[in-house]
Amino acid sequence: MNIPSNTIDRLCKIFGQLDILGKKSIEFVSSKDLAIAIGTTEYTVRKDISLIGVTGFTRKGYEVVSLKEQLGEKLNLKTQRKACIVGLGRLGTALLDYEKFKQDGFDIVAGFDSSINKIERIHTSIDVFSVAELENVVSQCNIELGIIAVPSEHAQDIADKLVRAGVKGILNFSPVEINVNENIIYSRIDLTNALRSIAARF
Amino acid sequence: MNIPSNTIDRLCKIFGQLDILGKKSIEFVSSKDLAIAIGTTEYTVRKDISLIGVTGFTRKGYEVVSLKEQLGEKLNLKTQRKACIVGLGRLGTALLDYEKFKQDGFDIVAGFDSSINKIERIHTSIDVFSVAELENVVSQCNIELGIIAVPSEHAQDIADKLVRAGVKGILNFSPVEINVNENIIYSRIDLTNALRSIAARF
Repeated sequence: MNIPSNTIDRLCKIFGQLDILGKKSIEFVSSKDLAIAIGTTEYTVRKDISLIGVTGFTRKGYEVVSLKEQLGEKLNLKTQRKACIVGLGRLGTALLDYEKFKQDGFDIVAGFDSSINKIERIHTSIDVFSVAELENVVSQCNIELGIIAVPSEHAQDIADKLVRAGVKGILNFSPVEINVNENIIYSRIDLTNALRSIAARF
Repeated sequence: MNIPSNTIDRLCKIFGQLDILGKKSIEFVSSKDLAIAIGTTEYTVRKDISLIGVTGFTRKGYEVVSLKEQLGEKLNLKTQRKACIVGLGRLGTALLDYEKFKQDGFDIVAGFDSSINKIERIHTSIDVFSVAELENVVSQCNIELGIIAVPSEHAQDIADKLVRAGVKGILNFSPVEINVNENIIYSRIDLTNALRSIAARF
C-alpha cells in the first residue's frame, strides 16, 4: 500500500475503536466520535478513511461493521498473524500471556529466553525455547512478528537473529533503538519515554 | 511551556538518546545521529532544539552532557516523580518492578489491586494496597503519575479515582480510551495497535 505512515497508524486506531464499538453492538459512529476516540480531528478522520476508498458514510455516520470490514481488508488485518516474544523477564512473560493479542488477531506461538533455568520454570501455555533455537523455530513456524523484551545489550543481536529467521516485523520493548534492514517493519515502545512525555507537560 | 505537543515528544526522545550516549561516555553527537536515533530529520532535530533556546552546537555536534542538562531543565525532567500502578495482573506487576523507571527518574511508590488475595500473594519490594485505599495513599504520598493496567471495564473508574486523588498525569495501558479532565496530562499505550501498525505495512 502507498498510504502515508501516519495515516496507517490512525487507521489502525480507528480499526481498534470500531472493534470496541462492534462488541457493544453499536451500529453507527460519527467521524466526530472517531476523532475524539483516537485523538485527532474530524477532518483527518474523514480524509484518512476516504484515502483508502472506503464507502458507506450515511447521515447516521459510518456503519461500524462495514467500515471495520473494509479497513481490515485494506490494512491486511484479517489474517491471524503469528508472533513470538524474545526475553522472558517480567515484561516478556506478561506479554506472552497478554490475552488480548490473540483476540485481536495476533497469535503468540513461541517465547524465547537465553536462560534454560527460566524456560524450565516458567508457567505458561505457550511453547518456550532457548534463544539458540530461535532461528529454527521462527522459520519453521512461519512467525511473522518478533517482539523483543530483552535487556538493552542483547536487543540488536536478537533483532539480527529474528531478521535472519525471516520475520517481517519487529516490535522492540527494550530501552535502546536497534538497526534493521529497511525491508523490516520496525517499531519501538519506549516505556520511560511515555512517562517523560507526560511529565514534561506538567 | 508553550511548545507544540509533537516537539515535546521528540525532545523527550532526544533526552533519552542523550542519556544512552552519556552512559557510554560519548561527548558529542550530531543532529544527524540524533535524527536517526529518534526517527526524524536533521532539520526537525535542529529546529526542535533551537525552539527551546538551547545553545552549545559546535562543529563536533551537540555536547551530550550539556544538551541533556539543558533539556532536562527546560522539560522539567530533573525532578524525581512519584508514580503508582493500578491493576496488578501480569502486565501491572511487570511494570511495578520495571527497574528502568527508577533509573530514569520515575519512582513507583505504590501498587493497587481490587483483589486482596492478589495483594497478599504478590512478590515485590513496592508497597501494595487495595484499590479502596487508592485515593488516600495517592494524595498522602503526593503521587503525580498514575499508570493504569486494569481490565477495560474498570479503566474509567480507576482514572476518575486517580484524578480525584490529585494525580497530574495518567498513562493508560488498558485496551480502551478513557475520558479525563483537560487539566490532566493523558496518554495511552495500545499494545495491540502497535502490532497492527506493523502488520498493516506488511
